[in-house]
Amino acid sequence: MSKTAKKRLSNCAVVYGLDIFGDRWTMLVLRDMILHGKRRYGEFLESEEGIATNILADRLKRLAAEGLVTVSRDPDNRRSNIYTLTEEGLSLMPVLFEIMNWSANYCELNERRTLLVKRIREDREGLMAEIRAREAALRNAA
Amino acid sequence: MSKTAKKRLSNCAVVYGLDIFGDRWTMLVLRDMILHGKRRYGEFLESEEGIATNILADRLKRLAAEGLVTVSRDPDNRRSNIYTLTEEGLSLMPVLFEIMNWSANYCELNERRTLLVKRIREDREGLMAEIRAREAALRNAA
Repeated sequence: MSKTAKKRLSNCAVVYGLDIFGDRWTMLVLRDMILHGKRRYGEFLESEEGIATNILADRLKRLAAEGLVTVSRDPDNRRSNIYTLTEEGLSLMPVLFEIMNWSANYCELNERRTLLVKRIREDREGLMAEIRAREAALRNAA
Repeated sequence: MSKTAKKRLSNCAVVYGLDIFGDRWTMLVLRDMILHGKRRYGEFLESEEGIATNILADRLKRLAAEGLVTVSRDPDNRRSNIYTLTEEGLSLMPVLFEIMNWSANYCELNERRTLLVKRIREDREGLMAEIRAREAALRNAA
């Protein structure tokens, strides 16, 4: 975690969290990593929201500076990076899940998303264990 | 909920939620209402983050348009408004709590905030029931 002299508005825990991950594009990159296991620049660009390349580069840099992801060379393409969630990044799962849980009460979701929210509501621990296992396997393969 | 033709980036539940409450100042107004029971314009202005009057007015208007708060005349001051959380607004408690829970692992909090996070971790249901009871009492008094 970069604890460098960033001036926060207050010492409130809500302010602290929002300063680090509260930006909309940052949250979508975290969503792509947590829910979809994305790890490469090109994979993030493919998401349907159409993140701009400069915004993506900036958000990945910030996530690394804050210690939510680590950056390493892609063994399959030495000119590319691989982004991996740290424990600090992974532990944002409950924040993401509660946002989805709330939204699902008020918006229509397709079948895949409806099933995911059902899993969040009925088997959150199992889902988190599955995501953690996937991440551990990716780290060990690196 | 205002379901007017607002164009979203995608039909993802994360996008949906962030569009409605993901703005930093919006979240701080919601925090003031949920955690501190604030209901009046002047009370929001007193928060230590120093929200600007124009931003506050805009965010309260948006929260009302989205159905997260209702607006009524202040019986003690007919020229002022009272803002009250709807069920949709109140049900953001878990999102707020998970943000605080995450942050508390990585930042130092004062004693009051530490106790609140402890309550979130150990007695979340009790805390939510207390907040709901306070809101119900305020609504009945209106």
